[in-house]
Amino acid sequence: MATLKDVARETGLTVTTVSRILNNRGYISEESRKKVEAAMKKLDYQPNEVARALSKKSSNVIGLIVPHINNPYFAEVISNLENEAKKKRYNILLFNSKSNDDNELKYIDMCKSNRVAGIIMMSGSVQMEEFSGLNVPLITIERNLECGTASIECDNFHGGEMAARQLIECGAKTLLHISGVNETEMPADERSVGFAKVCEAQGVWHREIKTTVKQYDSGEYHELLTELLLEYPEVDGIFASSDVIAAQLIQVSKKLGKRVPEDLKIVGFDDINIASLTTPTITSIRQPIKEMASTAIKFLLDAAAGKVVPTRMILPVQLNERESCSRGMIS
Amino acid sequence: MATLKDVARETGLTVTTVSRILNNRGYISEESRKKVEAAMKKLDYQPNEVARALSKKSSNVIGLIVPHINNPYFAEVISNLENEAKKKRYNILLFNSKSNDDNELKYIDMCKSNRVAGIIMMSGSVQMEEFSGLNVPLITIERNLECGTASIECDNFHGGEMAARQLIECGAKTLLHISGVNETEMPADERSVGFAKVCEAQGVWHREIKTTVKQYDSGEYHELLTELLLEYPEVDGIFASSDVIAAQLIQVSKKLGKRVPEDLKIVGFDDINIASLTTPTITSIRQPIKEMASTAIKFLLDAAAGKVVPTRMILPVQLNERESCSRGMIS
Repeated sequence: MATLKDVARETGLTVTTVSRILNNRGYISEESRKKVEAAMKKLDYQPNEVARALSKKSSNVIGLIVPHINNPYFAEVISNLENEAKKKRYNILLFNSKSNDDNELKYIDMCKSNRVAGIIMMSGSVQMEEFSGLNVPLITIERNLECGTASIECDNFHGGEMAARQLIECGAKTLLHISGVNETEMPADERSVGFAKVCEAQGVWHREIKTTVKQYDSGEYHELLTELLLEYPEVDGIFASSDVIAAQLIQVSKKLGKRVPEDLKIVGFDDINIASLTTPTITSIRQPIKEMASTAIKFLLDAAAGKVVPTRMILPVQLNERESCSRGMIS
Repeated sequence: MATLKDVARETGLTVTTVSRILNNRGYISEESRKKVEAAMKKLDYQPNEVARALSKKSSNVIGLIVPHINNPYFAEVISNLENEAKKKRYNILLFNSKSNDDNELKYIDMCKSNRVAGIIMMSGSVQMEEFSGLNVPLITIERNLECGTASIECDNFHGGEMAARQLIECGAKTLLHISGVNETEMPADERSVGFAKVCEAQGVWHREIKTTVKQYDSGEYHELLTELLLEYPEVDGIFASSDVIAAQLIQVSKKLGKRVPEDLKIVGFDDINIASLTTPTITSIRQPIKEMASTAIKFLLDAAAGKVVPTRMILPVQLNERESCSRGMIS
């Protein structure tokens, strides 16, 4: 592989001059710059990011720890984070924790070993003391970690309010909220607070049903949903805390002879691609994933550069009305 | 951050001995090993993978270039590759090319700059000469790149045959195959060859409909599918070359008053999570994604170690029967 010396030899310039050109330091003539660019291309010279990382003590890499890559919500967040990181010339080192604490700790160690510029966590019930020795920014997205540098969240409380209002305004009178994981405290828990507040203000019967980590990790809710529809036959509106749950609720409703939205109105959360691929399509609360991703990257790089960043940032959600609960179809 | 020297000082051993222990070289007493492990833990010492990469000329990182992270098929492959890489103590550096040739070239350069151990490409129409100077293994999954070290594919031809047989045995008599992208040659093109072969052997009317890169990149097929169902009202069986297309076909069928599977039987391809989240669920040809991922990682590391690896490997597919085309529901 070509080295800096080879580029210098090819151009007739000194190694110092070539290095200055590559790092944009000091005055450089247009002619020298063009010479170096031509030589780099001819010799297929690639700046050694590894050597650069060693001298800078940190690399052009951001560690990203997620619980389940193939959960479509996380896939969409990863895609957006990758996109935003690239704009700042950073790369993403990807870790799939499978919601396992041991994995999370191991991956944080791997991030340190690889001298990442910072870590973004979307996974984690890891305790504070475990992060000792972490001298890079730690940004969380939709997770509670007291020790993090900054926490990025969507407006879960308002999302819960919107879901309740949409169901009630479309005519639902008896509501369930199939909510987040029982075992872990998460920002998403605020959805049920907002949901209950609206139901109570409007005098609408409602109940919250918590789900389990096991269901979350497997993405399998059919059994729970069948039991719920049989136990609460009078329910005519359900707020599902993810579109994956909402999709399975459509399937179970059909098996039990309930029509969506005529007999049962459904509002999901996340607004990922599944929401528009089901029949009927799913009305869903959209997380501002793109904005959350760009904020996470910005805060990480700002904090790494020693700037002060907000410790918590809440971004607005919006309702995306589709067929499963629509004002145009009020029955 | 603690250094090797700090660990040596803490244990009373020499830096050379500590380094030998960390790298598992030569004879080391159990006592010394335990001392070093205790000191590493106490000082929160992390081996510097960056320095290691510089001395070894390559890192513990594998570059992965995909066209669309948030396409659920790719999300599932990424998840499996990450899992298999971790088992070998390698990390994944992730690049989202958005099917753009310029991005692919830039990301290959970034992989070189980061001294990856090898590259896995699931994206690419990049020409052969562009890979000059690439002195690490290049493994492709479901892509044609003549210059790659090894190509991993599923048995697309047999998958096409299985789809045709399933549709015909479930009673369909007039078939469409909504197939791969017109502009790029891909291993997936073999599906239509296998599909046509079975239809012709059994004297069944069939037609192949090619899709466009634009549709592939956007994941949006509703317009095309509506036109097709109106243009071919007699069609009672469709093989869709992805589950994303199959899901949209269920939606369009419902809008046009066609019942699935009674009036129209559908077989998808990939067997990703969407196939089990639609109503009805989708009968699909399963790619052996886990095996493809483990083979890709194995070939990459073998080739990096100088071993000879097969240039092409084809892994078997299987039919996963669900509601959209099922022998139990022959009408």
